Amino acid sequence: MLEFVKSISDLKKLDVKQLPQLCDEIRQKLIDSVPLTGGHLASNLGAVELTVALHYVFGEDDKIVWDVGHQSYVHKILTGRGENFCSLRQKDGLSGFPDGAESVYDSFNTGHAGTAISAALGLAQARDTLYNTYNVVAVVGDGSMTCGLNYEALNNIKNANMLIVLNDNNMSISGNVGAATLNMSKIRVGKYDENKERLKRNLQRIPLVGKGMYRFLRWCKRRAKLKFVRNSYFDIFDIKYIGIIDGNEIRDLIYYLTKIKNNVRKPTILHIVTKKGKGYAPAEKDPEQFHSVLPSSVAFSGAMDSSAVVGDALLKLAETRQDVVAICAAMSKATGLDVFANKYPKRFYDVGIAESHAVTFAGGLAKGGVKPYVAIYSTFLQRSYDQILHDVALQNLPVVFLLDRAGFVGADGQTHQGLFDLSYLGQIPNIKVWTPSTYSELSQMIFAGANENGPVAIRYSKTLSDELRDFDYKWNTVKQSVDRKIIVLAVGSRMVELALRASTDDVEIVDVTSVKPLDEVFLNGIGNAKILTLEENVISGGFGESVLTHLSQKGLANTVRIMGVNDVFVRHAQVDEQMAMCNLDVESIKKVIAELIK
Amino acid sequence: MLEFVKSISDLKKLDVKQLPQLCDEIRQKLIDSVPLTGGHLASNLGAVELTVALHYVFGEDDKIVWDVGHQSYVHKILTGRGENFCSLRQKDGLSGFPDGAESVYDSFNTGHAGTAISAALGLAQARDTLYNTYNVVAVVGDGSMTCGLNYEALNNIKNANMLIVLNDNNMSISGNVGAATLNMSKIRVGKYDENKERLKRNLQRIPLVGKGMYRFLRWCKRRAKLKFVRNSYFDIFDIKYIGIIDGNEIRDLIYYLTKIKNNVRKPTILHIVTKKGKGYAPAEKDPEQFHSVLPSSVAFSGAMDSSAVVGDALLKLAETRQDVVAICAAMSKATGLDVFANKYPKRFYDVGIAESHAVTFAGGLAKGGVKPYVAIYSTFLQRSYDQILHDVALQNLPVVFLLDRAGFVGADGQTHQGLFDLSYLGQIPNIKVWTPSTYSELSQMIFAGANENGPVAIRYSKTLSDELRDFDYKWNTVKQSVDRKIIVLAVGSRMVELALRASTDDVEIVDVTSVKPLDEVFLNGIGNAKILTLEENVISGGFGESVLTHLSQKGLANTVRIMGVNDVFVRHAQVDEQMAMCNLDVESIKKVIAELIK
Repeated sequence: MLEFVKSISDLKKLDVKQLPQLCDEIRQKLIDSVPLTGGHLASNLGAVELTVALHYVFGEDDKIVWDVGHQSYVHKILTGRGENFCSLRQKDGLSGFPDGAESVYDSFNTGHAGTAISAALGLAQARDTLYNTYNVVAVVGDGSMTCGLNYEALNNIKNANMLIVLNDNNMSISGNVGAATLNMSKIRVGKYDENKERLKRNLQRIPLVGKGMYRFLRWCKRRAKLKFVRNSYFDIFDIKYIGIIDGNEIRDLIYYLTKIKNNVRKPTILHIVTKKGKGYAPAEKDPEQFHSVLPSSVAFSGAMDSSAVVGDALLKLAETRQDVVAICAAMSKATGLDVFANKYPKRFYDVGIAESHAVTFAGGLAKGGVKPYVAIYSTFLQRSYDQILHDVALQNLPVVFLLDRAGFVGADGQTHQGLFDLSYLGQIPNIKVWTPSTYSELSQMIFAGANENGPVAIRYSKTLSDELRDFDYKWNTVKQSVDRKIIVLAVGSRMVELALRASTDDVEIVDVTSVKPLDEVFLNGIGNAKILTLEENVISGGFGESVLTHLSQKGLANTVRIMGVNDVFVRHAQVDEQMAMCNLDVESIKKVIAELIK
Repeated sequence: MLEFVKSISDLKKLDVKQLPQLCDEIRQKLIDSVPLTGGHLASNLGAVELTVALHYVFGEDDKIVWDVGHQSYVHKILTGRGENFCSLRQKDGLSGFPDGAESVYDSFNTGHAGTAISAALGLAQARDTLYNTYNVVAVVGDGSMTCGLNYEALNNIKNANMLIVLNDNNMSISGNVGAATLNMSKIRVGKYDENKERLKRNLQRIPLVGKGMYRFLRWCKRRAKLKFVRNSYFDIFDIKYIGIIDGNEIRDLIYYLTKIKNNVRKPTILHIVTKKGKGYAPAEKDPEQFHSVLPSSVAFSGAMDSSAVVGDALLKLAETRQDVVAICAAMSKATGLDVFANKYPKRFYDVGIAESHAVTFAGGLAKGGVKPYVAIYSTFLQRSYDQILHDVALQNLPVVFLLDRAGFVGADGQTHQGLFDLSYLGQIPNIKVWTPSTYSELSQMIFAGANENGPVAIRYSKTLSDELRDFDYKWNTVKQSVDRKIIVLAVGSRMVELALRASTDDVEIVDVTSVKPLDEVFLNGIGNAKILTLEENVISGGFGESVLTHLSQKGLANTVRIMGVNDVFVRHAQVDEQMAMCNLDVESIKKVIAELIK
């Protein structure tokens, strides 16, 4: 049937009775296809019925905003992108997130959690200002409710005519945290499912009247849920609450969505419960494992990665240093902190998707005399720029930041690139920025961070080099040259490797282990050498600029060529493709070196 | 009596009965002193009894974290800084905010709103980790409860033993906004005061038993408030709630604080109501006007300022452009938007102290086809770094940001400096950064912004030059030179003025109206001129670096000298003192020009 559904209007031609089969087919397509390209599997499996129901009930002009956006695959399939679905997360293929550049049906780009209600409120107010009439729907996971941005938006929703679908699977990526999210409803997934099934079974056992009675009770329940159920959390914001609904029951969804679309003209929450990984046994059993799957070609490489090194180093450090504590924002496994959390639960804090709080909280911890390590992906720490500056650096508090996924991130694309951290950290006084390019350096930096008296950020890509190199605060020369005409200053593993592959005998290559402070002793000794800097970061405010400025303000006229990302957002592709898109490839570097030699 | 209270231990020697007089004397000191130095008057007048009671009940080792911190003057007077109080907000004098560098009693530096609960939670967890026993108290205004950071902290508070005093005066700086804050308690200031007074009056009228009955009822009420009152908002976070208490009644405060200190070992909210401006009739009547007072020497200058120009320009623009809407974050008057809000209430949004939401919401509005102007002080927009990047710039949405108080801000000091915006904005792809130095340029930029198809940030200091200059996207040469040996590129009014005062005949001076993009046509025509750049911004990622990089990457060897703020936080002082502290004064610039001429 999916073959015939090439658009929203095709979908609307189907009878409600045909929808369960359509859902099955979509689910099968996901299970078949996502493991080939890699991507978010469990969240999409859970949201099949919801997505079908939303597009069945709402019109083509209506705006659906997908919070985070990694549950938007079904939406992509239904809005004309099914045939192209095998290109998901590939260069020039479909983005793994909603993308207005890809389809008009993607009403607002998302990627970072917690933005949907805020953006949807903007769409709703713009509609009213311009006397338009479309509906606005934000689809939000329960994990996002730990995010302060969401609270700020709810607090401002007033009388805006919009629907929020709270898609509750009782976990964000790891399990959920936080009192508000736990109390958001006293009935939670497990118990709700169980009670409902028991009632249905018992009633249907009664001969003759049982089935009718079940239907009558369902009618009563539906009326009650529409009219009378309240929720103490959403009451605070004066938002009409309808729930809890089984979000994997397409008929229920269509019933409630239709009622809301036709009758409700004020902000409304539809609270649904879905099963993450629904319909695929391995993913149902371990949804965290299947939250995001790697393409099957690389899924079982079993290679060491930076997060494993981080977990290991922190464990070792914590044995001797009783004051070491660790913080993450809803990603204990992905950041490598899960091993630390298991061993030292009292010294571990998962604050939920609350990066701003994570940092101010760490400031308080440091001021109170302990040694916090804050592990947040480079892209998500953007959320904490003011907190790093105002609550940590200003008091020179010894917090260690661990920024995983710095630099190019590959398939996740433009919303998730770690291409800004050298700039947004480097401009803040008091903070040091260290950039390991090997696992051994990373590990040593984690130990060294414990002895710092002010803030330190350590930023690294997912994988680093296996080479053994020591970190002693100075830069590491990894390749000497005969005449020292050209020195390549490379930041991070991939840039060092590129430099090694692109260089000739007369090029010296340096592994820049610290972007701030610069290794001034090294720079004082460069003589007349021409400099080439390589970094996975925007050029503005990055490493190359700081080298150039340092030399020029001392009156030195060394040529400095800066290679980095030149003021663009970089779309999804493989990491090496993204590097090539930004001229950070062997050929381009060879060319620049050749020019410098001239 | 205040003469004899030089420290916390002096305070503790007083009898409770003496405290009201002490409060009166402190209040008088504030009324006498603050108008001389300038500073926050109304909020401190309201918090006199609270501060005295906190220090009377709690110990010297206990940690009090003052949210925002502009209500910390009484705390400063009581902790040994009374004699130095006349130096408030002056160079080398007392900071207007809590400052650990100034006193050990300032447990955590604050300035931006909404950080106290998060930081206090860190202090409480650090205490438990290190087996310390001090108490932790966060004092938070009701306005801060609109802030998402606060929500994230409450959501993580779990069983932490700490007290939050919610100091409720039913307004942040302007009136309060947001459903949650309005619903936080159904009883609000006016009604509460009125009911209490009526009861007291009526009972005391009854001869013989009236007074005793009042005391008995007060006893009952106190027990009830301690034990039984609940609050739906704080219930969500499983936080014990005690309230509402009259926060200007010192005996009540001491009673409840003592009970809490002695008995409560879990997170607790003490909800008090205070009168902003209490005890000073003009401030009670118009607390917004007296929130912050200027030193009396400059209070009645009546000069035009940037916010007045912004208000005026937006009003005019809105007449012809029905799609223009405006957003502020709890500061409609200070940003100049109040006139717009009065005339176009339906096109105006005050989102509360919720800068992150303000920006994502603006992204939604822009995507929905209207033209949002977001007016947020430079320092507070730091809160929105990720939202500008991820929710606006990435989709190239036409939002206009109005950053008032860019550059040095004078007496508010290091937490409030607008010295980072050129860097945190300049590094984001797609955004333009315009920097007017005259009111005429500012006004024209506001009109020009309406025709942009992507994001624009306009950043300006509180006052600009009155000169008439046109903005046509190119830089404005304000002083030609004979031989064009040296060109000074100056960003903003103060830098242009400094350049004019420091320069000789052979120096050309340019008013840099756009930091991003650079005026490449201009730079292509500079020949061999030596360049001096001047900016009120950190050097890393700022204007000078981008000029230097631009020229050097084109292979041009022009000397570029960069003057700006060199990687330090700049403390409170007058603006010209701050500029001198950073070598941005006439003498320093003359010296650099002389070196360049050589």
